[in-house]
Amino acid sequence: MIGRAVVLLSGGLDSATVAAIAKSEGYDIYALSFDYAQRHRIELESAKRVAEYLNVKEHLVIKFDLRQIGGSALTSDIEVPKNLNSSSIPVTYVPARNTIFLSFALAWAEALGVGDIFIGANAVDYSGYPDCRPEYLNAYENMANLATKAAVEGQMKFRVRAPLLNLTKAEIIKKGLELGLDYSLTWSCYDPQQTDDIGLSPCGKCDSCRFRIKGFQAAGVNDPLSNR
Amino acid sequence: MIGRAVVLLSGGLDSATVAAIAKSEGYDIYALSFDYAQRHRIELESAKRVAEYLNVKEHLVIKFDLRQIGGSALTSDIEVPKNLNSSSIPVTYVPARNTIFLSFALAWAEALGVGDIFIGANAVDYSGYPDCRPEYLNAYENMANLATKAAVEGQMKFRVRAPLLNLTKAEIIKKGLELGLDYSLTWSCYDPQQTDDIGLSPCGKCDSCRFRIKGFQAAGVNDPLSNR
Repeated sequence: MIGRAVVLLSGGLDSATVAAIAKSEGYDIYALSFDYAQRHRIELESAKRVAEYLNVKEHLVIKFDLRQIGGSALTSDIEVPKNLNSSSIPVTYVPARNTIFLSFALAWAEALGVGDIFIGANAVDYSGYPDCRPEYLNAYENMANLATKAAVEGQMKFRVRAPLLNLTKAEIIKKGLELGLDYSLTWSCYDPQQTDDIGLSPCGKCDSCRFRIKGFQAAGVNDPLSNR
Repeated sequence: MIGRAVVLLSGGLDSATVAAIAKSEGYDIYALSFDYAQRHRIELESAKRVAEYLNVKEHLVIKFDLRQIGGSALTSDIEVPKNLNSSSIPVTYVPARNTIFLSFALAWAEALGVGDIFIGANAVDYSGYPDCRPEYLNAYENMANLATKAAVEGQMKFRVRAPLLNLTKAEIIKKGLELGLDYSLTWSCYDPQQTDDIGLSPCGKCDSCRFRIKGFQAAGVNDPLSNR
């Protein structure tokens, strides 16, 4: 037994793969998800399914309402952009989202006595969100070790682990498939479309859909979600 | 007009003083409080009264449940220690609390387009919480400027301002009184006692009460709350 880890689990492709990686390394997984009034709440159901599939030790869902803060297409009525071709950070950016998520992860990790926090941040096939970059994650880890009783008293050191950071989406998918992950359990679309027959379907055009589609194509495998 | 500032407002003596200082510097105040299932929820009523008294532009209360995470006397059934004489960090420490609070403050500040975030951290008459020390606050500020779209794109720089950091409790109280702050509006006790006649009373023995009592004594003034 290598120990325990807190894993941020959104229900998306990346975080599910990270959870599978942590499990393959021998960690007992404490999965953490957030019900933050996101537009694509279906990802929370995916998070639950992935957590069950990976047989996590505990799955905690923390609820708060980021619509109170706004400033993002994912937590307001701002439209989710489609077929975006822009080098700037898009409006789907949620102010300080990973910072908020990591802060709850840090709190839970400290309460559990766990040093390792896994996050599915990726800085290759991504939307340019600043809180997915290595310089941010390093600064977060540094702050975390000054913030907490457990670190300051020398009982543990917190590590923010982002094993997908430098992988392409295709490499992430291949890695997950190697580990036996069932990607039909995951959800990526920011703007799910209601259809009469099968419930919600991915829009296929938002950044998140496009990275997923491109990734499966480049990996040369079928997306099990594409049949929906 | 110097601009706008987000101020973390717990309803305690320190954060109320910080809000009064920010106001005296000419800031329009966006006060942020948290309903995190704290044992001493009465502080939220104090936060509302202080926000009204200081005529803040907006007072946002964000709700989440830190009992889900635990690990503290303030969010669980662990008893609040009385008359503590210890050099170690006490069980009233809440894992990563200021990190969580500052992260919501950062999100709101970014959504508002505000660079200045005020916090009532104090590293003199305090319980030794690691997330009240200058090295922590500096690391947080550094991380915040790597985390956010507004900072990375050069639109603003975030500053974590802790004007009480090096003041004694007596100095804090004198400063607040100079600025006309009414300390009867504030609340400090971690473990409010139910009394038949006047509702809740401070216990007078927890760390937070003791720092307050000592502070008013050293400042040579009466605590308007002590009549309760």
